[in-house]
Amino acid sequence: MEYLKNKIKADGKLIGNSVLKVDSFLNHQLEPLFIQEIGREIARRYQKDEITKILTIEASGIAVALIVGLELGVPVIFAKKKKPLTMDEGYYSADVYSFTKEEHTNIAVSKAYLSSTDKVLIVDDFLAMGAASKGLVEIVRQADASLAGIGIVVEKAFQGGGEELRTNGIRVESLAKIQAFQNGEIIFD
Amino acid sequence: MEYLKNKIKADGKLIGNSVLKVDSFLNHQLEPLFIQEIGREIARRYQKDEITKILTIEASGIAVALIVGLELGVPVIFAKKKKPLTMDEGYYSADVYSFTKEEHTNIAVSKAYLSSTDKVLIVDDFLAMGAASKGLVEIVRQADASLAGIGIVVEKAFQGGGEELRTNGIRVESLAKIQAFQNGEIIFD
Repeated sequence: MEYLKNKIKADGKLIGNSVLKVDSFLNHQLEPLFIQEIGREIARRYQKDEITKILTIEASGIAVALIVGLELGVPVIFAKKKKPLTMDEGYYSADVYSFTKEEHTNIAVSKAYLSSTDKVLIVDDFLAMGAASKGLVEIVRQADASLAGIGIVVEKAFQGGGEELRTNGIRVESLAKIQAFQNGEIIFD
Repeated sequence: MEYLKNKIKADGKLIGNSVLKVDSFLNHQLEPLFIQEIGREIARRYQKDEITKILTIEASGIAVALIVGLELGVPVIFAKKKKPLTMDEGYYSADVYSFTKEEHTNIAVSKAYLSSTDKVLIVDDFLAMGAASKGLVEIVRQADASLAGIGIVVEKAFQGGGEELRTNGIRVESLAKIQAFQNGEIIFD
């Protein structure tokens, strides 16, 4: 997706050897038309897969997932990073380690919204080591739902998470796949 | 907004005397068409106010704020609840106490995305005691930006946050205003 690659080149910032900061349009400030464009592209790729639910994780995944849900006409669930007091009934949960925040988080999804009759598309903004995606896959497994695949905005392929998921037979669609950061340049796949 | 009131009556759940759970369409699972409808209504109310930025807080405010941003054609910033390692430059911050999660959170917005030339519309899903809204108002103040007002999906008027903000001269538009919970019934304004 050239549009996204150009955006990352123009507005993304490299920090050290592995962190790509896209705070100006995806992670902290959102450019709504850009989000709409990438959400529509993810939806297009899973258009024929009879998706019944979009599953993402708070917070950065929500905006893109909402657009995918609008396009495919299905509800969007966002896994919570902390079980709130109002989540009183049963829930699925998984452990996720965030490398950028350096902490473990227990993510939770209420059993009321995901069941064995669902066909799920996981959506997230980033895929690096794959910690968040693996946590969401685990939640789909606990619900005994079927997994259509994963839709990612930016995959940092050199961190291996995407390859591991694909090796396990999971379909992963990434709109931009970064092979390496070299001398301050972003090398796309 | 009758549409929203009916939705809350049909799908909202009361927990005890002060908690309204709207997890099935707004807080955990999102119904995209519903979110689009309420986002458009908030945008309509501030259409003539020359808004330049939408400001919300992760996570539940993001979906509605994105639609408001799409409608008004301006960027959406979501305040982060934890300063990530990638937020290296200066930032505005404020303390927010969550009554449903029973914890203090320091919210942060990068200085790069909000400045004195901005006219800001704050958007959030709930307004109860007003803790999150007050934190976001404080961030607008720190940026020396002007505040057009606040757009809220559900205001629990009996908890006083909205009244306090209005008394301080802030325009607060709430799509549904709840006066009380009485014998398991929701009494709207």
